Amino acid sequence: MTQSSAQAGKPASKAAPRTAITPTRAENFPEWYQEVIKAADLAENSPVRGCMVIKPHGYALWENVQRSLDDLIKREGVQNAYFPLLIPLSFISREADHVDGFAKECAVVTHHRLEKGADGKLVPAPDAQLEEPFVIRPTSETIIGDSMAKWVQSYRDMPLLLNQWCNVMRWEMRTRMFLRTSEFLWQEGHNAFETADQANLDARKMLEVYNEMYENFMAIPGFKGEKTADERFPGAIHSYTIEAMMQDGKALQACTSHNLGQNFARSCGIKFQGRDGLEHYAHTTSWGLSTRSIGGLIMTHSDDDGLILPPRLAPQQVVILPIVKDDGNSSSVMEACHKLAAQLKEIGVRVMVDASEARAPDKMWAAIKKGVPVRVEIGAREVEQGTLTHTRRDVGRESKTTCSMTEFLGTIKPLLDTIHTSMYDKVMRATRSRVQNVVTLDQVKSFFTEGEGGFARMPIEMLDNEDYQIFKKDNSLSSRCLPFEDEGSMVLIGKSY
Amino acid sequence: MTQSSAQAGKPASKAAPRTAITPTRAENFPEWYQEVIKAADLAENSPVRGCMVIKPHGYALWENVQRSLDDLIKREGVQNAYFPLLIPLSFISREADHVDGFAKECAVVTHHRLEKGADGKLVPAPDAQLEEPFVIRPTSETIIGDSMAKWVQSYRDMPLLLNQWCNVMRWEMRTRMFLRTSEFLWQEGHNAFETADQANLDARKMLEVYNEMYENFMAIPGFKGEKTADERFPGAIHSYTIEAMMQDGKALQACTSHNLGQNFARSCGIKFQGRDGLEHYAHTTSWGLSTRSIGGLIMTHSDDDGLILPPRLAPQQVVILPIVKDDGNSSSVMEACHKLAAQLKEIGVRVMVDASEARAPDKMWAAIKKGVPVRVEIGAREVEQGTLTHTRRDVGRESKTTCSMTEFLGTIKPLLDTIHTSMYDKVMRATRSRVQNVVTLDQVKSFFTEGEGGFARMPIEMLDNEDYQIFKKDNSLSSRCLPFEDEGSMVLIGKSY
Repeated sequence: MTQSSAQAGKPASKAAPRTAITPTRAENFPEWYQEVIKAADLAENSPVRGCMVIKPHGYALWENVQRSLDDLIKREGVQNAYFPLLIPLSFISREADHVDGFAKECAVVTHHRLEKGADGKLVPAPDAQLEEPFVIRPTSETIIGDSMAKWVQSYRDMPLLLNQWCNVMRWEMRTRMFLRTSEFLWQEGHNAFETADQANLDARKMLEVYNEMYENFMAIPGFKGEKTADERFPGAIHSYTIEAMMQDGKALQACTSHNLGQNFARSCGIKFQGRDGLEHYAHTTSWGLSTRSIGGLIMTHSDDDGLILPPRLAPQQVVILPIVKDDGNSSSVMEACHKLAAQLKEIGVRVMVDASEARAPDKMWAAIKKGVPVRVEIGAREVEQGTLTHTRRDVGRESKTTCSMTEFLGTIKPLLDTIHTSMYDKVMRATRSRVQNVVTLDQVKSFFTEGEGGFARMPIEMLDNEDYQIFKKDNSLSSRCLPFEDEGSMVLIGKSY
Repeated sequence: MTQSSAQAGKPASKAAPRTAITPTRAENFPEWYQEVIKAADLAENSPVRGCMVIKPHGYALWENVQRSLDDLIKREGVQNAYFPLLIPLSFISREADHVDGFAKECAVVTHHRLEKGADGKLVPAPDAQLEEPFVIRPTSETIIGDSMAKWVQSYRDMPLLLNQWCNVMRWEMRTRMFLRTSEFLWQEGHNAFETADQANLDARKMLEVYNEMYENFMAIPGFKGEKTADERFPGAIHSYTIEAMMQDGKALQACTSHNLGQNFARSCGIKFQGRDGLEHYAHTTSWGLSTRSIGGLIMTHSDDDGLILPPRLAPQQVVILPIVKDDGNSSSVMEACHKLAAQLKEIGVRVMVDASEARAPDKMWAAIKKGVPVRVEIGAREVEQGTLTHTRRDVGRESKTTCSMTEFLGTIKPLLDTIHTSMYDKVMRATRSRVQNVVTLDQVKSFFTEGEGGFARMPIEMLDNEDYQIFKKDNSLSSRCLPFEDEGSMVLIGKSY
């Protein structure tokens, strides 16, 4: 079923075709996920419980996500800023008073100095205990709200549109790289408006910005909708989400955008003098996308041979593999490779020549496992003929094509666009085929116990059905969203990450 | 003495000429600094002691610093990555054992959950005390060293060149925005090499990269040299620095690059099998540049009317001020302004139209205080004639020029380069004139007690002189560096931030 089974140059065995990643998706999806990350050298666990080290290849991917999304955010007139990492406990208390379901698992700073203890080891100095402890920001509504309260005095000071790129921390018990880590990287946007309508339009608009990011850069079609009350961000009056379907049929909440109404403005004191001369609370929104999106990207596109990266985010869009034999032609081959690389760079293609000492098949497999969209092979014969051979990562062997270097230079950019569209379409087909309309509990049950999984699209009335609630709990189902297209009449349910 | 005294459009008084910033540099340099930051809307103090909020204009400036330096760092083959915010206490202990002068003022995380206390307020949950506390990274040598120890097995795994952009925290008692804050933003590079020579060449090379950043983007000429032993980074065998002279004659350590020898490799266990088949410790370097550089930029270039930004880092290089009167011409003026802005954007100039409702003089003063390199005025007459008037922030009124829109579009990019060079040259002249060669203690004393301050260039032998040491301590002097150009025979001394 996988691309890899038909891949050339693969060490074959008489038994089942081998894959570069073991186990395969079908055998054990969660383990496959970890192995893809390892094989692509994206990240690894750190000595700090629940925190990961993002390795260069993974971080380059995140930088491309950042750059792309940052451009979209700035296009909307939002300005970046930076607020403190630490939040006074009194701020958190204020929020906790206003917000039910407030999460209390967070890193607490209680001391500001170390000293050598009796056994010569460092300990927190008892005389350096803080009067008021701090928590490391799990999210920054309260500390940004504190600034907003100062900056907003009149309706003329709004809209106030702020974003920050930063690290946040939530003490997680069970962690998985990218998907759920105690520390993670994200952007968090915080906007303030004069009217309720403006805030709600903004929360919807920022969801569309995320959708643009997912569709045009990540090649991921998602389900846009509103969260049901039980899944809402604590303190929000409307939470909007994009739910993406992973290859195992589970949902990943890909980002969220919240209309917080006047709740946070009330707890942070964001007041302004309105056009009527009276004092009002502002209406605020918040919206975030995190390194979790990288986990979604991996689980959406990759196959049993490893990572497959959408071209617009791939750190290298093209890898050039010199096919060098010990026959004295190596210098002309290397020269041709570097020349092509320089020409590709000139037209804005991100490219790398694998000039390592590894054997050619190992180089090819490294490029496959790292998900590089297009790999190019150049050997002595190609140099002589002025040609090259290129292969698409998403299609594999069938796409292997020989053409002239000039032709390649002229077609690589449209080819990268084609790969993007083709990856998007493939996921779209797979995803849509796994969404089933259900109208009875029996249909719900058979969909989630007999089929290969996915999302069920169910009339919202059924949410109140007691038998459904029992089944939902027993099977770890949750309401993913009320899709916008159904205008609130239907709910998408599924298992989730 | 200041640009402002000759500035047009300024509310004049019969007494001394007024300036936009009060106090002036001459009256009170430290307070002037805070007022420039406030008037330019760069940052403000936060409710978290010693931490600042970086406001949009300040953060946009930092983003430009980041973007410029990141390109230079990547050009050197360094890869970005990300390591955990928290460092286990055992790692810090390990470092403290190896390193004298290790700083113990840091934020200590001791609990991982909050709960409601007896009075209903949130407190750290007693049953959620961590077995091993963490500190928030003051710098990441130990946690990155832990990864390097895994990643480096053979000499073939090096050079290993890593960098991260992140926040760090040091519990500071006396803080000043940008210059010294408990939390600050920086990049920290960490490289590992096979040989001692490679490490030292790298530490020197990265200092040259910083110098390129300072000269080509910040328009700041610095003094490159090596730190004396008493000023070295704890654990380093050579610390290199760029010392920049502020307008009050004090030194700012603008960045540092350290050759750590095998010290950190030993404490972190970064070992490899060498070409000789034996096990060796790696030789490492670390190098950093922080938001402190923004403080240096402010104190180097700004004047008594506020911030002056070097064009290559300015968030807006050009601001367009529509001169609109209530005579029905406003729409054609606004149209011309937006058209010009679009044309400037097209050729890669960062531009903003100030379309606010403020009065024209207020808009002009806002642009001056924010340090925008070039401001353009367009009114009804200019629209009619197809002209505009532009003024340089660094020169002021004397540079006021009227030209055609076409001519402006053709000359703005060279003009921005001219401004950069002119700012650099001005600082170079001012700085060099305030460096004095001294060979006797009397000369040192008269330079620092009678003159307007600056750096004294002194033979290193005098450092051991007991009377000099007393004078140095009494006058808060320190050794800034042994300038490379003097090959170790001279030391630059001065007061510092």
